[in-house]
Amino acid sequence: MEKNDNGLRPGERLDDLLTHELQIIQSDEVFSFSLDAVLLARFCKVPPRGRIVDLCTGNGVIPLLLSTRTKADIVGVEIQDRLADMAARNVRWNRLEDRLRIVHGDLKQAHDVLGYGQFDLVTVNPPYLPIASGDRKLNPHIAAARHELFCTLDDVLAACSRLVRTGGKVAMVHRPSRLAEIMSGMQKYRLEPKRMRFIHPREGQEANMVLIEATRDGKPELRVLPPLIVHSADGYCQELLDVYYGHADELKEKGEAQ
Amino acid sequence: MEKNDNGLRPGERLDDLLTHELQIIQSDEVFSFSLDAVLLARFCKVPPRGRIVDLCTGNGVIPLLLSTRTKADIVGVEIQDRLADMAARNVRWNRLEDRLRIVHGDLKQAHDVLGYGQFDLVTVNPPYLPIASGDRKLNPHIAAARHELFCTLDDVLAACSRLVRTGGKVAMVHRPSRLAEIMSGMQKYRLEPKRMRFIHPREGQEANMVLIEATRDGKPELRVLPPLIVHSADGYCQELLDVYYGHADELKEKGEAQ
Repeated sequence: MEKNDNGLRPGERLDDLLTHELQIIQSDEVFSFSLDAVLLARFCKVPPRGRIVDLCTGNGVIPLLLSTRTKADIVGVEIQDRLADMAARNVRWNRLEDRLRIVHGDLKQAHDVLGYGQFDLVTVNPPYLPIASGDRKLNPHIAAARHELFCTLDDVLAACSRLVRTGGKVAMVHRPSRLAEIMSGMQKYRLEPKRMRFIHPREGQEANMVLIEATRDGKPELRVLPPLIVHSADGYCQELLDVYYGHADELKEKGEAQ
Repeated sequence: MEKNDNGLRPGERLDDLLTHELQIIQSDEVFSFSLDAVLLARFCKVPPRGRIVDLCTGNGVIPLLLSTRTKADIVGVEIQDRLADMAARNVRWNRLEDRLRIVHGDLKQAHDVLGYGQFDLVTVNPPYLPIASGDRKLNPHIAAARHELFCTLDDVLAACSRLVRTGGKVAMVHRPSRLAEIMSGMQKYRLEPKRMRFIHPREGQEANMVLIEATRDGKPELRVLPPLIVHSADGYCQELLDVYYGHADELKEKGEAQ
């Protein structure tokens, strides 16, 4: 596929990922990434080389973002065919086929294809809501991204535990409301929570997101990082401005210097 | 015991609790309260009446502080005789014998004396460090306050679960490093974590304390409150100034008005 043949399908658009000139095919009908994915891709400790797998990869946003931080091989696993196809096109569009690969399949059986304990890092931005709750009238793609239709939290943690090597890391973004279940589940699957960060929309508000990183068979000792307050009085906080526009500024400066 | 006979023993001193004219007997050799206890006593939701028990009560600081927020009957449980005696003298010194009672005993057997499921709220500021770690050359009183010599975290959570009624609350202060163990342990004993708050010494620093409140047989859904940043650029943050001096100001204003 050539860059001038972007191969977009109906309802899809091509967005800038605002870093390293990456672009991403998205669709509001099917999947478009959010702040959660961006924060997870920055939060996790990435090995400089080795192997990474991203579960519930959607359109592959996390593998794309991680590719700018590491030379590791990265696999994305996605159960929905339309999304797995979009993710594979995103890999090709950004010419990352040598390091990124999309597997269309169920994370519950991913070890059949990917083996046990073969990964240095597993990342996952799973559906946040149990099946019982929320709006069931959503279209099936959006419903599966938000609700635990194809996998429960327990399924996700079990899969992470099977795929990661001893001493390897599992990094997840989720809602704080599920945190007790996440931490119990991690311990059940020998994933010891080691680093955690809460995201609050504004100062004085409760957290609406949690980033958590565990080590397979790690020693129990959790660090809680300084919170991230997304909005300051006059817009995005500096840390997020750096994420979204830091690299754009670099590019701009480079352009001006030329 | 009269107010002018404070009955202090060698090494003890009488400190203001900075609220409601309460005073507290302390001793640096044996036990003196810290910010942890003050924050826990403010964090927990107290029933206006009913029954509260404070485990690992030390010199009774939490029962004294809670007595200003509720008309409930409050029991403090302390295993060390020298501390249980100090706590009992603190109750008498502040003339709170009608509502506060100190039980000298082991929390592992507290249900023999206090019964099962008889309390609306259990509070606990337990020793933070496992037996294996830290300085073992401390004097035995300080060692028992800091290290799990008399009770483990599992013992504490089991005791909380036995004493609290269905739907009642358990509030604890602890180190974030133990949080995974706390949350798994709570779930094991049917204490569902519902509210949590992290304390950071300064902006940009990791949390060094966590306040957590669970409901016996509660529905899983955790709220993570805005963080408390203890020190601002010019000293204690406003929230803590209000805790420590808010009431003193009220008293001063009242005095000036008279």
